[in-house]
Amino acid sequence: MSLIVAKFGGTSVADVERIERAAEKIKREVEAGNQVVVVVSAMSGVTNQLVGYCDSISKLQDLREYDTVVSSGEQITAGLMALALQKRGVSARSWLGWQIPFRTNDMHGKARITDIDATEIQKRLAENEVAVIPGFQGVTARNRISTLGRGGSDTSAVAMAVALNADRCDIYTDVDGVYTTDPRIVPAARKIKKISFEEMLELASLGAKVLQTRSVEIAMKKGVALQVLSSFEDHIGSDIPGTLIVKEDKNMEEELVSGIACARNEAKVTLLGVKDEPGIASKVFSPLSKAGINVDMIVQNIAADGETTDMTFTVPRTDLARSLEALEKAEIDYKELRSAEDVAKISIVGVGMISHSGVAEKMFSTLAEKGINIQVISTSEIKISVLIAEDYAELAVRALHSAYGLDKED
Amino acid sequence: MSLIVAKFGGTSVADVERIERAAEKIKREVEAGNQVVVVVSAMSGVTNQLVGYCDSISKLQDLREYDTVVSSGEQITAGLMALALQKRGVSARSWLGWQIPFRTNDMHGKARITDIDATEIQKRLAENEVAVIPGFQGVTARNRISTLGRGGSDTSAVAMAVALNADRCDIYTDVDGVYTTDPRIVPAARKIKKISFEEMLELASLGAKVLQTRSVEIAMKKGVALQVLSSFEDHIGSDIPGTLIVKEDKNMEEELVSGIACARNEAKVTLLGVKDEPGIASKVFSPLSKAGINVDMIVQNIAADGETTDMTFTVPRTDLARSLEALEKAEIDYKELRSAEDVAKISIVGVGMISHSGVAEKMFSTLAEKGINIQVISTSEIKISVLIAEDYAELAVRALHSAYGLDKED
Repeated sequence: MSLIVAKFGGTSVADVERIERAAEKIKREVEAGNQVVVVVSAMSGVTNQLVGYCDSISKLQDLREYDTVVSSGEQITAGLMALALQKRGVSARSWLGWQIPFRTNDMHGKARITDIDATEIQKRLAENEVAVIPGFQGVTARNRISTLGRGGSDTSAVAMAVALNADRCDIYTDVDGVYTTDPRIVPAARKIKKISFEEMLELASLGAKVLQTRSVEIAMKKGVALQVLSSFEDHIGSDIPGTLIVKEDKNMEEELVSGIACARNEAKVTLLGVKDEPGIASKVFSPLSKAGINVDMIVQNIAADGETTDMTFTVPRTDLARSLEALEKAEIDYKELRSAEDVAKISIVGVGMISHSGVAEKMFSTLAEKGINIQVISTSEIKISVLIAEDYAELAVRALHSAYGLDKED
Repeated sequence: MSLIVAKFGGTSVADVERIERAAEKIKREVEAGNQVVVVVSAMSGVTNQLVGYCDSISKLQDLREYDTVVSSGEQITAGLMALALQKRGVSARSWLGWQIPFRTNDMHGKARITDIDATEIQKRLAENEVAVIPGFQGVTARNRISTLGRGGSDTSAVAMAVALNADRCDIYTDVDGVYTTDPRIVPAARKIKKISFEEMLELASLGAKVLQTRSVEIAMKKGVALQVLSSFEDHIGSDIPGTLIVKEDKNMEEELVSGIACARNEAKVTLLGVKDEPGIASKVFSPLSKAGINVDMIVQNIAADGETTDMTFTVPRTDLARSLEALEKAEIDYKELRSAEDVAKISIVGVGMISHSGVAEKMFSTLAEKGINIQVISTSEIKISVLIAEDYAELAVRALHSAYGLDKED
C-alpha cells in the first residue's frame, strides 16, 4: 500500500468528461490498495476568466479580494471531482484550503505555505476516503483565502505530499512527460525517463512549462519522488511511462546534456559607459533588488577607454518598464541605457556536464556554425545559458538538440 | 443615519459592468451617511452552469459537495463587488459564509440558518467599512459550506438585516416591484405599491419570482421592512418607486384578490390503489419527509372498490426522481405509481378573500369557461391554488387576472 498524491492540471480537468476520466484513474489507484490525495486545478480557462474580471475592474487590486475571486475555480473542480469519485463508489470528500487548514503567510496573490495540518485528512485516508484538495489556495492567519501564484497547484501537491509523508507525487498533465526540449520546436525531441531534481529545476525555471519551479524546489528539499504523467494515457499497472524526477544518481551521467530549454520571457538591459569603480555592481543592482526585480544573466565588459565599463543583464520582460524606471531614478553614472525585448535564452542542462570538458565549446561552435551571435553567456554547474536574438531561437534549439545527440532514433 | 442591507440579484450583477453600476448605488448610500451591508447573488447564469456540472456527473449527489461547487458563484461576485467599491474609494471587504460565520444546520442544499455572528461586521460598519456578503451560503457546525436553496440570497439578506437590526432591507432586482401577475404573461399587470407580508408570502411561494418565500417569512416574523426595487432605475432621494412589503392594514382589503401566481416548478405524483387503512397517509409521506422533500398539494380519493384509495400530491420538480425512489423503497401497499411534470399551479391571493364569498366560485367558473380541467385544489385563508395542465397556464392566468378586475386601466 502506498500513499499517493495525484495532481491534475487544468487541461486534465478541462470539463466534466475529463474530470470523470481523471476519477477513473484515481479509482484504479484506490482499487490497487493505495491511499490517494487528489489535488486539482481550475477547469482550463476558468482562472483566466476570473483574473480577467478582476483586472477589468481595477489593475491595482486589493489582492485579498482577488484571491477570494480566483480561488473559486479550484473550489469548483474539487467539489466536482469528489462527486465523480463518489459516483464510482469511491469514498471521497473535498477539503478547501481553510478546512484543512492549509496555512500560508499573507502575501496575497503569491503566498508562501507556512503549515499544513494534515491530521484529519490522515485519519480519513486510513478509513479509505480519498481527499480532494483544490490546488493554488490556502488560508492566512487572518482567516482570508490566499493563493500561491500562477501554477501554484503543483506546489500545493508537493506540499501535501510532504505533509502526509507520501510515497509519491504524481503530476498529471497534458503532456506525457518531460522532453529533451519542446516537441513543438523539435519534433525529434525524446521523452526523458528519469531526471534529477537539479536538472528539472533548471528546465522548469528555464521555460519547460511542465512543472512549476517552486514545486520542484520543495520536492528536492524534502525528497518527494515526483512523477510527470499524461492524464490522457493509461498508465496504471504498466511500466512508468512518464518522467520520474529523483535524486541525482550515477547512471544519469551517461547523458552529458539532458535537455535544451528555451525561454522568451526575459528582456536585456545594457548600461553603457558606467564609471568603473569599486561597488558599482551594487549601485546598479540594489535599486532593482529593492523594486523586487530578479536579475538573471549578468556580464560586465571593460570598455575601450579603460575607465568605464559596459554592463548587460536580463530581467523578466514583465518587469522591464519598472527596471528602466528604477535605474533612471538611481544615482548611477552612465552614458547610455539600452534595452531589448527581442531576445531568447537558450540553455543546455545536464548533471553530467560538470565532469566533462568540451560541452560548452560544442554549444558555442554549433551556434557559430549557424551564424547565431551570442549576446550574453551564463553558466552554473549543470547548465549553460546563452542569450541570442529571438528570431534564431528555434534554429538554435534544433541545432543544439541534434549536436548533443538528443534526437530520437527512428 | 440608517443601517441598510441591500441585496442585488443575479441580473443586477450579471457582468462586471452591472456590478460597477450596483457599486455606484452603494456608494451613494454611503455618501448619504448610511452604513451598508451588500448581499450579492451569483452573476446570472453562473449558478445554473455550476448546478449543470453537478447534475451531469450524477443526479443523486452528495449535497455537501454540491454546496461546495454552487456556492462559488456568490463568492466570485462578493470579491468583485468589494473591488468595485474600493475602486470608488468606498472602504469594503468581502465576508464569506465561513468567515462571518453565517451558521446553518447541515441540511445541505437547503440549509436553515441557525445563528449569525455579526460582531466583527458590526465593528467594521461603525468604521464605515461596507460589508459584502455572498448570498445563498453559510457554514455548518462541521465546517462545511452549506447553501440555502435556490433564491436563498434573499433569505441571506433578510437574515443579515435581522442579525444587524437593520433599518431596512432593499432587494434590488430586474423588475421594479411586485406585480399583480407576471407582466410577461399579462401585459396589463399592475405594479403593487404596498402589499402585506402574508400576501407576498403566498405570491412568493406560488411562483412570483420576485422574492424567495423564506425571506418574506423571516421578515414578517422579525418585522424587517422590505422593499423591492429595480437595480436599473435611479431611486435614491426620490419617492419609493418599488413595492413596500409591510404588516397587513385595513385599506389593503379593498382588493379581494391582490395577485395571480403561476408556478411551474412542481410535479404531480399519484399512488393508485393504496390500501385504505389508518395511518396510510403517514406511511406515504414519512419517507418523503425523511428524504427532506416538501409535499405541497395533497388530495385523496376513495377508489371505486371502496377498499383502496388514490392519493395525489405535488413535490418540487427537482425532487421528483428522489421522491419516486423513496416511495418505491418504502413499504407501501399500492397498485401503481404515476408521475407527471407537465403541470402548473395557478393561485389567486388576497387578504380580503377570507371575508368574501364567491371568490372561489369565480375562479372555478372562469377556468371552466375556458375549458381548463382542474386536477387538484388546495386553499388557505388568503389563497386558492389549482393544479392544471401546463399548456393552459398562460391562458388561465390571463383569464383570472381579467375576471378579478386586476387589469391596468389604459
